[in-house]
Amino acid sequence: MSRCLVTGGAGFIGSHLVARLLAEGHSVAVFDDLSLGRREHVPAAARFTQADLLDLEAVEKAVDGQDAVFHLAANSDIDFGRRQSDRDLRQGTLATYNVLEAMRRRGVKKLVFASTSAVYGETPAIALREDYGPLLPISLYGASKLACEGLISAFAHNYGVQAWIYRFANVVGANATHGAIFDFARKLKKDPKRLEVLGDGTQSKPYLLASDVVDGMLFGFSHAGDAVNLFNLACEGGTSVAEIARIVVEEAGLSGVAVSYSGGKRGWVGDVPFVRMDPAKLAALGWKARHDSTEAVRLAARAVVAQVAQSASL
Amino acid sequence: MSRCLVTGGAGFIGSHLVARLLAEGHSVAVFDDLSLGRREHVPAAARFTQADLLDLEAVEKAVDGQDAVFHLAANSDIDFGRRQSDRDLRQGTLATYNVLEAMRRRGVKKLVFASTSAVYGETPAIALREDYGPLLPISLYGASKLACEGLISAFAHNYGVQAWIYRFANVVGANATHGAIFDFARKLKKDPKRLEVLGDGTQSKPYLLASDVVDGMLFGFSHAGDAVNLFNLACEGGTSVAEIARIVVEEAGLSGVAVSYSGGKRGWVGDVPFVRMDPAKLAALGWKARHDSTEAVRLAARAVVAQVAQSASL
Repeated sequence: MSRCLVTGGAGFIGSHLVARLLAEGHSVAVFDDLSLGRREHVPAAARFTQADLLDLEAVEKAVDGQDAVFHLAANSDIDFGRRQSDRDLRQGTLATYNVLEAMRRRGVKKLVFASTSAVYGETPAIALREDYGPLLPISLYGASKLACEGLISAFAHNYGVQAWIYRFANVVGANATHGAIFDFARKLKKDPKRLEVLGDGTQSKPYLLASDVVDGMLFGFSHAGDAVNLFNLACEGGTSVAEIARIVVEEAGLSGVAVSYSGGKRGWVGDVPFVRMDPAKLAALGWKARHDSTEAVRLAARAVVAQVAQSASL
Repeated sequence: MSRCLVTGGAGFIGSHLVARLLAEGHSVAVFDDLSLGRREHVPAAARFTQADLLDLEAVEKAVDGQDAVFHLAANSDIDFGRRQSDRDLRQGTLATYNVLEAMRRRGVKKLVFASTSAVYGETPAIALREDYGPLLPISLYGASKLACEGLISAFAHNYGVQAWIYRFANVVGANATHGAIFDFARKLKKDPKRLEVLGDGTQSKPYLLASDVVDGMLFGFSHAGDAVNLFNLACEGGTSVAEIARIVVEEAGLSGVAVSYSGGKRGWVGDVPFVRMDPAKLAALGWKARHDSTEAVRLAARAVVAQVAQSASL
């Protein structure tokens, strides 16, 4: 049993991680500004601090005495990051610097970080390995995560922090706050007759259930012991947006929905339309996602449709 | 003839670039906070603004109406960046964000950026190509330059900025403000009998004369037309620190100097001891450094020894 801080612990992936850490008997503290996260996602068994990662003193206080920090907090809305060009810089890069600096000042040595396939930018249609280069992200979100990876690597070398960096595939599941499944479920709740899809529907990416993401993060954390451990956290293959639309419609119990496409190969500027990731590096240590991409989408659609149906605000 | 802004134009590489741009008939403005740069390096023909890149309003004013921005300003002292962990974040990452944001607001479209081999981190002993990965820098300086590359790539994709990113080898020559040659020349001026060298002397890297760096930057700028153009700016091979010490001693006209080594394979924490860079990508467009690494060291040592001898403050 150890003491863990989860930043963004009231958010989508964070809430799954917190539940899992508590179930394993760890002592868990959550740090979240509730800009995207929800207070009700944080179980009573976890200590909760509502504060901003840009407040270095608050971060120092929160990391003090922790065995490990799981740093998941970030702006997860890529499109929003484009409209306010310093959002990812502040909530991603500067926030991560503060986490690292607070750890350095308080002597906290282990950091698990949520990075993203967006660091790869727009690439050839191959299964990307962790050593793919050059890294030319096309979104400010991807740029910020790349900046964080570099900062973490430098802090590891200079100040003895040990790090596990995971480049996540698209993560789906209950408690999602954004993404295609969430958007489709909300749109269908408002109008069960039609569904407008951004892009031409051929965008295709690997989807991973949040429970699998949590599982992979913890597996790598206990099985990889380098100073900096960098892994894709993904499944093989992928699922197209058109398939996702079909699955969400099915899971919503609807039929005869008129699905239309806004057109263009991207959902939005900064969207990478085709992504495949090679999960071999983490697989070599013995880990594999329980669900393939399209299974993950279906299970997530089921959970999200139910949550959206129950929610008054969505 | 065009209008160019050079950030860090009073600094080491900047001063060489400004002289060259003026010689080619361009209209040149210099933006420098004079933290490392020197006012006397800026020719009278260049417009000069002393200001901080963290002052976004000042940056906006400076970029307004420019055809291109050459963004060279940064903390160039890697070891200092370790002792003050937010120095490279502020003077590198945030300053570069401001340059990009100012360009976006004022509609300036062309950016030439000084990156570094330090983004590669500690790598196998191979000639590194631009597509080498993973990029795990071991210095905060390298981390910041990697962050800047990502920001530039994202701004290029989202806001139509066109960029030329050069990963510099070690740059040497007159007006240097740091580096082995400069340090050795200063030490020998103080005590011509002995020279202490950081590390064991086997550290070996490619050295490029500032004049060659300027030449390569301008060559790529006029010969590469992608949205983001990423190049190593380097020569083949490299020179060891022990060789540099020998050359500086010779160029200082000294003999019988007792050279001692502090030991250890690195000069300092964050120093990458062995670097080789593959210059083939820029070479394929037709550019090659005029001087090889050891020639560059000798010519630079000659110039730096003369400057140090003349200076009262060094």
